[in-house]
Amino acid sequence: MDSRIDRLSQLVRDKGLDAYVVMRDPNVFYLTGSISGGRLILTRNEEPTLLVGRLNLACAQDQAKGCGVKPYTRKEQIDLIVTELGGGDLEIIGFDEISLSMYNDLSGRMPDVELRTAPEIIGSMRRVKDAGEIDLMKRAAELADIGMDAINDCIVDGIRENEVAAEAAYAMRREGADSLAFPFIVVSGPRSAYPHGGVTDRKIKRGEFVTIDMGAGYKEYKTDITRTFIVGSPTERQVEIYETVLSANLSALRKIRKGVSGAEVHADAERVIGEAGYGEYFIHGLGHGVGLEVHEGPSLGKTSEDILEVGNVVTNEPGIYIPGYGGVRIEDTVLVTTSDPVCLTETPKDLDAMRV
Amino acid sequence: MDSRIDRLSQLVRDKGLDAYVVMRDPNVFYLTGSISGGRLILTRNEEPTLLVGRLNLACAQDQAKGCGVKPYTRKEQIDLIVTELGGGDLEIIGFDEISLSMYNDLSGRMPDVELRTAPEIIGSMRRVKDAGEIDLMKRAAELADIGMDAINDCIVDGIRENEVAAEAAYAMRREGADSLAFPFIVVSGPRSAYPHGGVTDRKIKRGEFVTIDMGAGYKEYKTDITRTFIVGSPTERQVEIYETVLSANLSALRKIRKGVSGAEVHADAERVIGEAGYGEYFIHGLGHGVGLEVHEGPSLGKTSEDILEVGNVVTNEPGIYIPGYGGVRIEDTVLVTTSDPVCLTETPKDLDAMRV
Repeated sequence: MDSRIDRLSQLVRDKGLDAYVVMRDPNVFYLTGSISGGRLILTRNEEPTLLVGRLNLACAQDQAKGCGVKPYTRKEQIDLIVTELGGGDLEIIGFDEISLSMYNDLSGRMPDVELRTAPEIIGSMRRVKDAGEIDLMKRAAELADIGMDAINDCIVDGIRENEVAAEAAYAMRREGADSLAFPFIVVSGPRSAYPHGGVTDRKIKRGEFVTIDMGAGYKEYKTDITRTFIVGSPTERQVEIYETVLSANLSALRKIRKGVSGAEVHADAERVIGEAGYGEYFIHGLGHGVGLEVHEGPSLGKTSEDILEVGNVVTNEPGIYIPGYGGVRIEDTVLVTTSDPVCLTETPKDLDAMRV
Repeated sequence: MDSRIDRLSQLVRDKGLDAYVVMRDPNVFYLTGSISGGRLILTRNEEPTLLVGRLNLACAQDQAKGCGVKPYTRKEQIDLIVTELGGGDLEIIGFDEISLSMYNDLSGRMPDVELRTAPEIIGSMRRVKDAGEIDLMKRAAELADIGMDAINDCIVDGIRENEVAAEAAYAMRREGADSLAFPFIVVSGPRSAYPHGGVTDRKIKRGEFVTIDMGAGYKEYKTDITRTFIVGSPTERQVEIYETVLSANLSALRKIRKGVSGAEVHADAERVIGEAGYGEYFIHGLGHGVGLEVHEGPSLGKTSEDILEVGNVVTNEPGIYIPGYGGVRIEDTVLVTTSDPVCLTETPKDLDAMRV
């Protein structure tokens, strides 16, 4: 089987590019297996080269497969990239990402070459997970479920948001998570109306919504889950909001299939929430791809042009957020298969399970 | 006292800029107190405006001080920034950061205006911490010390790297950390030669170096500490390496004073390590500023042009890394004062304290 570097090289040629420069750490890891970061340079003729700072050189030399490894200093970076690109008959060079300053520096050195930002080339590979990646993501999802179990066990009237994060993070790490997928979100009471409200030392009180959005990292792969708990007995309004978000989550889940567009799946959740009268309070896209990064392709959102493929792993996370009152979000990490979608995260989400 | 926004506006005028656009979340927080992110636009005449995506609008409306708050969608972003900038007689607009695509979009809309990346304007403010910031960083440093205590208590022959991270993170969060300053580094045995080696499930063995680099986040402020432990009795070579790094740390610490350049402090550590015969194995800069971000100004490194000022908070982190063998790094977070420097992190670092 062709290596990932071989497949990327073919895609680069197919797109009419003469070379491709990989600047982003997760892309370097995906292609070489090295956590060193660096700049991976693919040309038509030469062996790929990974330029790495001195700090991470030993790591790259031990870990990087399928490429040569050379050290660079910040001062030499532009010179070395130009040298590795080889000059000659280059017309178009693609980059997974390029900063304004590097664009200016390289343009100055290669005035006749078109420098093109082309993240979609490597992105189109990364969004289709292979069997090995799916195994790692399943384990990362199990670890996230373990974290949610710990939260279910610990939330009581009077516990602080940061104490909830402590218990969940501890449970996940003890079972094998090597990192958190992203910083915890634990938002309680009126703060639950902030989709991205971080964690504070606020005491959680009876009668409040508590939304926890978090994930485990396992061997570089991430997962993403959100549950909203209710401390004590929910009010009628809380029940209505919760059940609306749950209906949207379950309805959208059924749409997550190969060949369906990200915009269609989002529209389905939007329809369910709109019909319940909460349309103005669903203020973000339904989901995003997850893998080596917690936000990657494909996108499930109003303006998404992505079409779902087998092997995509995406979040399904409808929410309702009422300023000054509170909010609910229910999110799973979902695998697109040849038939029904599979929720990798399996923590229960019916209302009864969320009462603590 | 002038607000931070007022002081920034004055600096922007002093630098001859007509407007300044703040794109980065920590800068928005520093200026407005809001964790919402967004684009903060300062002009000569109008009240500052914070443009915020719908997702974080309620958060910004509740938290942002000293500016108006308006929503934007990604599609409208460029239009709204141009509108808020106001046109008229703009000649130069500064940005704390600007992507290539936004640069191209804005240049197209304002072809006669110079768009200039000027992160140093806000950076010069952020690197001098005020009394309130120093109090928060002291607390963040105490929390990091609590994490190191937990590590000291848990490391034994046979424990896994991720289990060590679990105990330290748990201890810090239970005592009030609301986040980790950055993902843990726990590198043991030959992996301790990787300065940035992450965390794995590797079992730590008797006789090995174990380097832990981590920090606590407290109310948005970060801290940064590294210690290298030795499981059991150190060999002669381990003692020599450890004592060399410790000497470099203590010697450089004495140099951390107002008016001294970052390059001088780095050179001092480099001299100590070089004289011991390990010069080729000290492969990174001595330190960096810490505050709302774990890497900010000023820099302590070979090519740094920064001059230390009272109120700077910097790391002091010499290290020796021998590929295939292992490494040692000793790091504290240090406050520059009117007299002697103060280590905010206070975990012991003499060799005896590191034997577990």
